[in-house]
Amino acid sequence: MHLISIISLGPGDPELITLKGLRRLREADAIYCPATVQPDGSLASRAADILRALDIDLAAIRPFPVAMRDDRAAALADYGAAVERIAAECAEGRRVAVTAEGDAGFYSSSGYVSALLAERGLSTERIAGIPAFVACAASEGVVIAEQTEETDVLTTLASADELLARVAAGRSVVLMKPSRYASAVKEAIAQAPDGVAFHYFEHAGADAERAFYSCRRDAILERRFPYFSLLIVRRG
Amino acid sequence: MHLISIISLGPGDPELITLKGLRRLREADAIYCPATVQPDGSLASRAADILRALDIDLAAIRPFPVAMRDDRAAALADYGAAVERIAAECAEGRRVAVTAEGDAGFYSSSGYVSALLAERGLSTERIAGIPAFVACAASEGVVIAEQTEETDVLTTLASADELLARVAAGRSVVLMKPSRYASAVKEAIAQAPDGVAFHYFEHAGADAERAFYSCRRDAILERRFPYFSLLIVRRG
Repeated sequence: MHLISIISLGPGDPELITLKGLRRLREADAIYCPATVQPDGSLASRAADILRALDIDLAAIRPFPVAMRDDRAAALADYGAAVERIAAECAEGRRVAVTAEGDAGFYSSSGYVSALLAERGLSTERIAGIPAFVACAASEGVVIAEQTEETDVLTTLASADELLARVAAGRSVVLMKPSRYASAVKEAIAQAPDGVAFHYFEHAGADAERAFYSCRRDAILERRFPYFSLLIVRRG
Repeated sequence: MHLISIISLGPGDPELITLKGLRRLREADAIYCPATVQPDGSLASRAADILRALDIDLAAIRPFPVAMRDDRAAALADYGAAVERIAAECAEGRRVAVTAEGDAGFYSSSGYVSALLAERGLSTERIAGIPAFVACAASEGVVIAEQTEETDVLTTLASADELLARVAAGRSVVLMKPSRYASAVKEAIAQAPDGVAFHYFEHAGADAERAFYSCRRDAILERRFPYFSLLIVRRG
């Protein structure tokens, strides 16, 4: 059986891929990258952008369209179509890589691809990568958690009170995709007592020109929380 | 001011360091690695072992002794002594790297070094690395968390009930350093209803010969939970 590699690219800075991930990319005959369809019909892929900055065979890159993140049925159909193409390449003896941003096991849609491949009896190996929150923290020297602190990683938030209660209990809280619950986060920032530190990141690692960081409450409250943003909140 | 790099080495597999981390190691004149004093007086360092597997200048490696993990006062004194040496090397114009296993911002003692260096007005940059739980999951194709699941990372656990309640609430739980609370974990494994998946890892990434993985409850209950072990527990 032909081996397919699911390769984590890390947070966006091409230099934050692992040696192993880069080696597998260079060994691959075909590299599948999720992409979004632009208004002009072209495909845009952050993953492909990362690959272009690395020394690999660009002819191997195969961007594949994936529908908007909130339309799961359409996205699943797109992953199914990509898996058809991957299976056909494997049948011809080619080594295939599938890329994932961040780490492929941590809030990644690459799990759909692995599952669909497994249904066809095609096994995959997975190469680990750096999750976005780890890279964000490193870029500003922020400690995520230490000693016996608990770390909670959230992708939804019911209320400002919920966040403040977690921090008051001594937990370190990572807020992923805060664009979905920006008002609750901003309410928490406005209400938080002294001694609660909010570390806010936009586009960290991916794009030095657009990257933004602040731990000043007034500065964070002015931001619009784009899709590529996250916060680390803890006592500090 | 001379720049000092805190470099995350990742989980132990030398190939899971980032390109950026490796570049900084090669640029450094001196590389400080935490080590433990062996019964014969020699220094053992997992970090130095990783460096020896990479193509860097071995003459730059400076293992420094750090007292047992549970003796914080002694460990702090050891970090202070290392910072003295680092400051002296910087004063002579050398580029210094300090290594951390996993990621330096995520339950790492390298924060002590950064803080002590900051007290002397010496700034550091930090290079991100892959935390152990991310590498463990990748090695076995285990999904850590997806969609809107919450991820809780714990280094202590009050009871088996606490763990089972978190999983029943739909959370994905990473148990770090379970050697400290092995009995509570084993009690949870014995009591858990069907549909709770326990993924247990020993020495993942670090040592292929000693690496062990199981998701079978009876097999996990037989293990002794050494220091380098962790679990991922979720509905599955």
